[in-house]
Amino acid sequence: MTGSVEFFFDYGSPFSYLADTQMADLEKSTGTTVVYRPMLLGGVLKATGNASPMAVPAKGAYMGLELRRWAERYGVPFRANLFPFRSNTLRLMRGAFASQRLGVFCAYHRSVFPAVWGEPLDLGDEAVFRRLLERAAIDPQRLLDAIEAQDTKDELRRSTEEAVRRGVFGAPTFFVGDEMFWGNDRLTFVEQALRRV
Amino acid sequence: MTGSVEFFFDYGSPFSYLADTQMADLEKSTGTTVVYRPMLLGGVLKATGNASPMAVPAKGAYMGLELRRWAERYGVPFRANLFPFRSNTLRLMRGAFASQRLGVFCAYHRSVFPAVWGEPLDLGDEAVFRRLLERAAIDPQRLLDAIEAQDTKDELRRSTEEAVRRGVFGAPTFFVGDEMFWGNDRLTFVEQALRRV
Repeated sequence: MTGSVEFFFDYGSPFSYLADTQMADLEKSTGTTVVYRPMLLGGVLKATGNASPMAVPAKGAYMGLELRRWAERYGVPFRANLFPFRSNTLRLMRGAFASQRLGVFCAYHRSVFPAVWGEPLDLGDEAVFRRLLERAAIDPQRLLDAIEAQDTKDELRRSTEEAVRRGVFGAPTFFVGDEMFWGNDRLTFVEQALRRV
Repeated sequence: MTGSVEFFFDYGSPFSYLADTQMADLEKSTGTTVVYRPMLLGGVLKATGNASPMAVPAKGAYMGLELRRWAERYGVPFRANLFPFRSNTLRLMRGAFASQRLGVFCAYHRSVFPAVWGEPLDLGDEAVFRRLLERAAIDPQRLLDAIEAQDTKDELRRSTEEAVRRGVFGAPTFFVGDEMFWGNDRLTFVEQALRRV
């Protein structure tokens, strides 16, 4: 994986959104490529025995503060959204693989993160999800059909299992070769590792 | 607390040690003062329902990697030490208050963190602790007597309770006024906040 960084993310993870806003700059400044690796964070937490920071009230309160701080530092919009905590992000994450298969991942990815963490939309609601896809010029029915395909489900399962096998316990997680970096706040280390490659 | 930053720490927290190595530079670069606030991390975790990252095996493994990374970035020695996980750091933390009362906190603090995380020593062993104090030119018996004083015990309890009341759930934690920052990796934010003061 020389010259590239793997970016494991879940659309329900606000720190993954924040990191995602920095990927274009990271590619430009290091001359490398970001490999987008969708995974199901809920599956990772379950497999590793880890829990969302929101599970500890004092930590959850601080996380809200942190998210606003990083959004301010990056100069990107951020709005709290309960949707990923209320429902899960299974359909959105399968959608990442489905959109790859349909050749529209870039449009999909570019739409979903800002919709969840910038607007914020409740993408757990299928009608809202369909409208988002239309706005992104993606055929909603074609994508929803692809989401239901067994191959798509298998791909997400395999990706999540691979993440756990490689040591992932949270999101976002980056790999430069075998070197793992957890958290939006490790991008300076990721950049350093990419410069060494 | 204008012009100063409160630094809540526990000698058993390796990230507190790493942050501690940066305090002199922080004071110099910002022209402010670090206020050392000893607390019992075990008490904080218990009160908030938080857990050590070591409680999740995948996270624990990654934390080992992270500690080495930061030690390398800072250019300071770091050695893993099981003592804080095997026994607790109650005596060491009471020692911080006892040494303040005896007027030898600087010598005590300067000795303890590097002994735990640089050498590493098992300071849970009283004989090892006594030798460390002797090396720091602190009278071991006087300090041990001060550690057993009710006032010392009360001070640590009150400090820990204050930390929890103010939202602390881990170590190190910094306050610039009411603004809270958790983690060694937030020192750039702390510095920024101090420059705003």
